[in-house]
Amino acid sequence: MENLRQFFKNDKFAEYVGIQLLEVDKGYAKAKLELAKHHLNGIDIAHGAAIFSLADLAFAAASNSHGNAAVAINVSISYLKAVTEGILFAEAKEVSLKPKLATYTVQITDEQDDIIAIFQGTVYRKKDKLNVQKNFP
Amino acid sequence: MENLRQFFKNDKFAEYVGIQLLEVDKGYAKAKLELAKHHLNGIDIAHGAAIFSLADLAFAAASNSHGNAAVAINVSISYLKAVTEGILFAEAKEVSLKPKLATYTVQITDEQDDIIAIFQGTVYRKKDKLNVQKNFP
Amino acid sequence: MENLRQFFKNDKFAEYVGIQLLEVDKGYAKAKLELAKHHLNGIDIAHGAAIFSLADLAFAAASNSHGNAAVAINVSISYLKAVTEGILFAEAKEVSLKPKLATYTVQITDEQDDIIAIFQGTVYRKKDKLNVQKNFP
Amino acid sequence: MENLRQFFKNDKFAEYVGIQLLEVDKGYAKAKLELAKHHLNGIDIAHGAAIFSLADLAFAAASNSHGNAAVAINVSISYLKAVTEGILFAEAKEVSLKPKLATYTVQITDEQDDIIAIFQGTVYRKKDKLNVQKNFP
Repeated sequence: MENLRQFFKNDKFAEYVGIQLLEVDKGYAKAKLELAKHHLNGIDIAHGAAIFSLADLAFAAASNSHGNAAVAINVSISYLKAVTEGILFAEAKEVSLKPKLATYTVQITDEQDDIIAIFQGTVYRKKDKLNVQKNFP
Repeated sequence: MENLRQFFKNDKFAEYVGIQLLEVDKGYAKAKLELAKHHLNGIDIAHGAAIFSLADLAFAAASNSHGNAAVAINVSISYLKAVTEGILFAEAKEVSLKPKLATYTVQITDEQDDIIAIFQGTVYRKKDKLNVQKNFP
Repeated sequence: MENLRQFFKNDKFAEYVGIQLLEVDKGYAKAKLELAKHHLNGIDIAHGAAIFSLADLAFAAASNSHGNAAVAINVSISYLKAVTEGILFAEAKEVSLKPKLATYTVQITDEQDDIIAIFQGTVYRKKDKLNVQKNFP
Repeated sequence: MENLRQFFKNDKFAEYVGIQLLEVDKGYAKAKLELAKHHLNGIDIAHGAAIFSLADLAFAAASNSHGNAAVAINVSISYLKAVTEGILFAEAKEVSLKPKLATYTVQITDEQDDIIAIFQGTVYRKKDKLNVQKNFP
């Protein structure tokens, strides 16, 4: 848990946006975002990029959970429902893990458990180990 | 230009992240992001979600440029080069415009004009006009 | 079942490629492809476009299962494992259904139940009803 | 030119579907598909998977043009215009080439030069050289 906090603190953008990592395990992660005014777009609905940012943190945590540095190659996101307030959750699951590549799906839900968006992403896994002291896990 | 500033000010998330809309025209937009510490991830490179947020503003501006409210359905982004500092630019171009749907490509470049990421997105175009006073353009 | 056969027979491309629709229900479909030599690429592994074609039939059947003509807007596919022979299955599930738009995920597996590819797609739903006699369901 | 024919002949699926490779150069390729009845779907428009197959051949040729075997990791395709007959063209351009990864955009057009679909794909580049005698180029 201390390690998670470390990871979260080192991810400056996620922290700035206000995203919290709730859980992380091998190939799995869950994050949350409590919607505030600065997460909205020009028509006062939750910004697509804020939703992406939430999903991306779960994706990054899950894909870095094996100890090797993993960098995103490609992501596709589909937006399914507009939300204006409340708490959003993102849950990332590993679909495939190979030496160089790994693929994840992320589901973003609201407090009613409605699916807000789905996200599918692939990472390239480097040989470098994450610095456990500085980074994660 | 006053209108653009309006649009930018109403997009709370883009403003919070520090993204600036530089140009917008029918089916076209350009935005920039000057990388600061809060745009980095846990390994001190520009965060994928910060790059997405930049591209997304150009996409939103271009797709809303015809006066109808346009909401993102789907986006795919491919990350091509890691960056750690400097200014990033995103340029959105319209590929297709139909009554209900429109599709855009966005190219994200750095100050050396290297392509950092490419982005392809589709919007659903509502019947509602954007509120010109409040929103854009 | 007679209706399914109808649908399959009307989809000339799927029939030509050799894809069979196994099941279809509201928002759900399953299809299979028995790999033959003409499904391989230049290095004798199952062609990415043949795998896409299989997934696409399940996607089309699931998205047309409500009776309205649905046309694909966008698809993302990630390839996870190379295969050279055997039978592939694609299972499409509805993630979101709205009056104009609907989104599906499709999982492609082999006979060992390993995931070969994942597919995420969105359709635009027309007002036109499918011609039940001629088309489906 | 003889080499191109070789490549095309070894790609059993592309040949079976009826796709022709017109040009290939380092990081570039162009292919065509003359629409026939077996390329149509159940409502008699060009099948999304046939269009994908066309784009995929241009993508494969461009990404294998440097001599290393390249396998598709991820593809996103957006469909922009329905077509029922005529000749379709796909033109693949390299956006990024790194030792392990490369990314391409493919534009699919009809005889009126209208854009039918856009395609964005990434490959993993293996160390293995393509067998020049057997494969390409």
